[in-house]
Amino acid sequence: MRWTQTLIPTLREAPADAEILSHKLLLRSGLIRKLAAGVYTFMPLGLRTLRKIEQIVREEMDRSGALELALPILHPKEIWEQSGRAEPWRNTLFKVKDSGNREWFLSPTAEEAVTAMAGGEINSYRQLPKNFYQIGAKFRDEIRPRFGLLRAKEFVMKDAYSFDVSDEAAQVTYQKMHDAYSKIFARCGLKTIAVEASSGAMGGSFSAEFMIPAEIGEDEVAYCEACNYAANTEKATSKIPKTAAREIGEPIGKFATPGVVTIEALQKAPYSVPANRQIKTLIYMAASKLIIILVRGDDQLNEAKLAGKIGTTVFRPATAEEIFEATGAHPGSLGAVTSTRKYQEIQVFADERLQGANGMTTGANEDGFHLRNVSIERDVQVNQWADLRVVQAGEPCPNCGKPLKIRRAIEVGHVYKLGTKFSVALGAEFLDESGARKPCVMGCYGIGVTRTLQAVIEQCNDKDGIIWPVSVAPYRVCITPLNADPNSEAMKLAEKIYAELTERGIDAILDDRDERPGVKFKDADLVGFPIRIGIGEKSLARGEIEIKPRGGTLMPAKISEALERIMPLTQ
Amino acid sequence: MRWTQTLIPTLREAPADAEILSHKLLLRSGLIRKLAAGVYTFMPLGLRTLRKIEQIVREEMDRSGALELALPILHPKEIWEQSGRAEPWRNTLFKVKDSGNREWFLSPTAEEAVTAMAGGEINSYRQLPKNFYQIGAKFRDEIRPRFGLLRAKEFVMKDAYSFDVSDEAAQVTYQKMHDAYSKIFARCGLKTIAVEASSGAMGGSFSAEFMIPAEIGEDEVAYCEACNYAANTEKATSKIPKTAAREIGEPIGKFATPGVVTIEALQKAPYSVPANRQIKTLIYMAASKLIIILVRGDDQLNEAKLAGKIGTTVFRPATAEEIFEATGAHPGSLGAVTSTRKYQEIQVFADERLQGANGMTTGANEDGFHLRNVSIERDVQVNQWADLRVVQAGEPCPNCGKPLKIRRAIEVGHVYKLGTKFSVALGAEFLDESGARKPCVMGCYGIGVTRTLQAVIEQCNDKDGIIWPVSVAPYRVCITPLNADPNSEAMKLAEKIYAELTERGIDAILDDRDERPGVKFKDADLVGFPIRIGIGEKSLARGEIEIKPRGGTLMPAKISEALERIMPLTQ
Repeated sequence: MRWTQTLIPTLREAPADAEILSHKLLLRSGLIRKLAAGVYTFMPLGLRTLRKIEQIVREEMDRSGALELALPILHPKEIWEQSGRAEPWRNTLFKVKDSGNREWFLSPTAEEAVTAMAGGEINSYRQLPKNFYQIGAKFRDEIRPRFGLLRAKEFVMKDAYSFDVSDEAAQVTYQKMHDAYSKIFARCGLKTIAVEASSGAMGGSFSAEFMIPAEIGEDEVAYCEACNYAANTEKATSKIPKTAAREIGEPIGKFATPGVVTIEALQKAPYSVPANRQIKTLIYMAASKLIIILVRGDDQLNEAKLAGKIGTTVFRPATAEEIFEATGAHPGSLGAVTSTRKYQEIQVFADERLQGANGMTTGANEDGFHLRNVSIERDVQVNQWADLRVVQAGEPCPNCGKPLKIRRAIEVGHVYKLGTKFSVALGAEFLDESGARKPCVMGCYGIGVTRTLQAVIEQCNDKDGIIWPVSVAPYRVCITPLNADPNSEAMKLAEKIYAELTERGIDAILDDRDERPGVKFKDADLVGFPIRIGIGEKSLARGEIEIKPRGGTLMPAKISEALERIMPLTQ
Repeated sequence: MRWTQTLIPTLREAPADAEILSHKLLLRSGLIRKLAAGVYTFMPLGLRTLRKIEQIVREEMDRSGALELALPILHPKEIWEQSGRAEPWRNTLFKVKDSGNREWFLSPTAEEAVTAMAGGEINSYRQLPKNFYQIGAKFRDEIRPRFGLLRAKEFVMKDAYSFDVSDEAAQVTYQKMHDAYSKIFARCGLKTIAVEASSGAMGGSFSAEFMIPAEIGEDEVAYCEACNYAANTEKATSKIPKTAAREIGEPIGKFATPGVVTIEALQKAPYSVPANRQIKTLIYMAASKLIIILVRGDDQLNEAKLAGKIGTTVFRPATAEEIFEATGAHPGSLGAVTSTRKYQEIQVFADERLQGANGMTTGANEDGFHLRNVSIERDVQVNQWADLRVVQAGEPCPNCGKPLKIRRAIEVGHVYKLGTKFSVALGAEFLDESGARKPCVMGCYGIGVTRTLQAVIEQCNDKDGIIWPVSVAPYRVCITPLNADPNSEAMKLAEKIYAELTERGIDAILDDRDERPGVKFKDADLVGFPIRIGIGEKSLARGEIEIKPRGGTLMPAKISEALERIMPLTQ
């Protein structure tokens, strides 16, 4: 390709709404353009890189035995109702009504569509295992799209769905996908870490995320440098000890705390109750019912863990009105003690760290009062104990006990064991060897393809621009004659090298613009071609060209040896 | 690929809602499955063919110098309002409202999105010409989806948009695209005819369609076997003579016609007015205004020609109430004579065939009466003359005068010269050599990719199934060992041939199913692999295999010569 024939609209400055480096570089290098908030056009070079990433994904998926197909983007509402996800996913689903008043969703993921298809076509264990994948546009109604392709309304995903005869067989497929993902990201030049993850609203039984450590990531990973434990903080646990029980449970006592409505205020004189001796009482509305959640005063509720426990992501903190009606108190005076609650039938979920704790302080469910000497066992009726807290840096690793660290990261891939939730709901069953009808055991496996593209930029850059790994660069080689006159020696040699590279299957771009060398070099560095070949009159006079790996040092090379010097760099 | 590893769910019978052969074959061969009305999943083999067609399109578009990019599917409503198409396209646009109450359309075409992008990135004549294309999902809210991929709600299109400095330059690009399209369809194994077409709601100034003759086509083409004239009947003209004027215009005269409200009734005794001496008066509501259209009694109004004349496709026949209010008469008694109309300000569009006609009969705008001896020139105030009639088979070709024929056809591609409508509306301007700001002259070029796939099936089949052209077959070769036992001689040879073909880059499928030969042959014929290689014990005993080109005759071949006999058939 010649630079003047394609369109590479580089920019000196990124638009103001690009907050993070990779987003800025995407725009500055002319790889993408915004059509509207959260919706981007892939310009010619951006699309080339996207296609290369897609091809890597395709090759590794095919190698694993998965079958590519293409499910529609328009999904009838009915199948989402059948799976029970229409409601929990309603905030992220784009909804479309057609002229016949039928409702459709724009696919954010395709468990329903693929399971309905499999239900129609798979009948026998002989047809299993099957793993179907597709690469295409997905949609999520992001309220606040930002960070370019990292949180967009429309994006490209590879999604795969596996069907197996048993849990054991599904585990084998899951591991194959885990391995394929490691290869895919490695081939894209990305350093990822696989972490234990929350299954969240997917309803999966086990899952792992592939993460790119990055300051601007939207996820947090807790990890242990000693034993390689790593988990999304939504899922991470630790060996932190339970709250120490005191020897004798003194009787419960109410005391006045006028105006005190926070854990912090109660820590101060005259009350001086440390946060770790307080019980934090939260009231949530989940599936139209109130629930109470108890965590220690110095802990934070982990909503992902709560979602896993209650089996839905559709919940929210109750409103002040709802709370007052249920407890007779306002938020800030809520308490854990059963006898002080107006309604007894509310389910209570308590964090395990509170198990056996006594001598605790909590709200009295009466504005302006707290209770001291509360014993969880004696005074609080807990319906379900669970790990509901957010792990903090420095807590002991659940595997080896060494202190955990926490860092931010970008999720680029996710593998789930799904079980039979969808196959039961949508009728994907098979007859086993004995003729018994059974639901397929499923897994699902996603890669954010456009997100991976941006993650590569986030990981591979310097002050001058992007540094593309050879495997996913828009063009592997940029040939830069410093004189663009078609009759100049520089241009003639540039054309010759361009033809020779093309013949060898190396995609190259020839910068045939009539621009100053500085402009050409700056643009080539910004766009991030892995290898730049400079052809100037001074070096020509010495019988040389200049080979400059992006991010490496300039290497003069004899013209006669040009190709054999360039070729190894392009692989 | 091994047959047992992929999924080819062939069917004996097509589902009842598949009305036409190509749709039935798509389903029976397991290439696609319906997810919902007008929305299909591409199964593994269907997707392979789709990708091959896409790749042919891509190669020819790239060869023509066009640049691939990817515009989003979600288009903000605002750009469609800027171009003025939100209203005329409202019935075909899928509308989406996001959680922030912003409105989006699912792209049915992308003139607005690409022109807005070009407006931002193109500044100078030095950057032109540019021709951008994409291959991807498009959406139309079809009220009655049918015929499988021919009229679907979601489909794959290649759409291209060119930007030039002048009409002459745009004409060059248009011709390049016309040539590329001919090559693309030929490479797909399709026999197409390029016909003159109506530009309809695209607002283009000139256009051509690529058509596949087919009984079930939704379009009609008028063509001349003598001179190769061919045009969509929406656009076709003929050398049919104007209505003969009689020598003396007799005075106009009203006569009673109780109960006569059709052209046919007036043809009968006692009135006996031939249809070709009647004026048909139609009243339409177009852009909230009534218009009158006059055609001869034996002609039909061509609504596409009317759309081209009035510049919008948003019109409909007026209701009886609207007509009565405007004329004082009911439909069936409407007349062309100006003086009899209640409202004079209504614009009158008349078909050119009526120019100079006299001695005509028409309604009196009074129920139960008609007027005779009407002279168009004397009695009817015509605002605009135009070709507004539907051409009939047998009329003289507009080029050579020989009789036209008419046949049905499927449109697979369309090339338009667009002019500056979109570039003006969306600000795609450039500075010319003298520094003057000018709008780009645009063209747009569409190929229905999924439609092309089905058109190939419609054109290439026999009673046993599909006959894929080698270029777009899901697999070029199907190897059919009649014994699937891995240790059989047949299977061992099958594996060897499979490996040799794969090594030579020929995609083959190995039917490793433990099925009767009849089932295997039937499935291979149904799916339509171009070359089938039968390996049975009888022929093996003779040292032979059987090569069977789909739709051709069986050719025994020595095992030692197998490859050299197969290879030429795969190209």
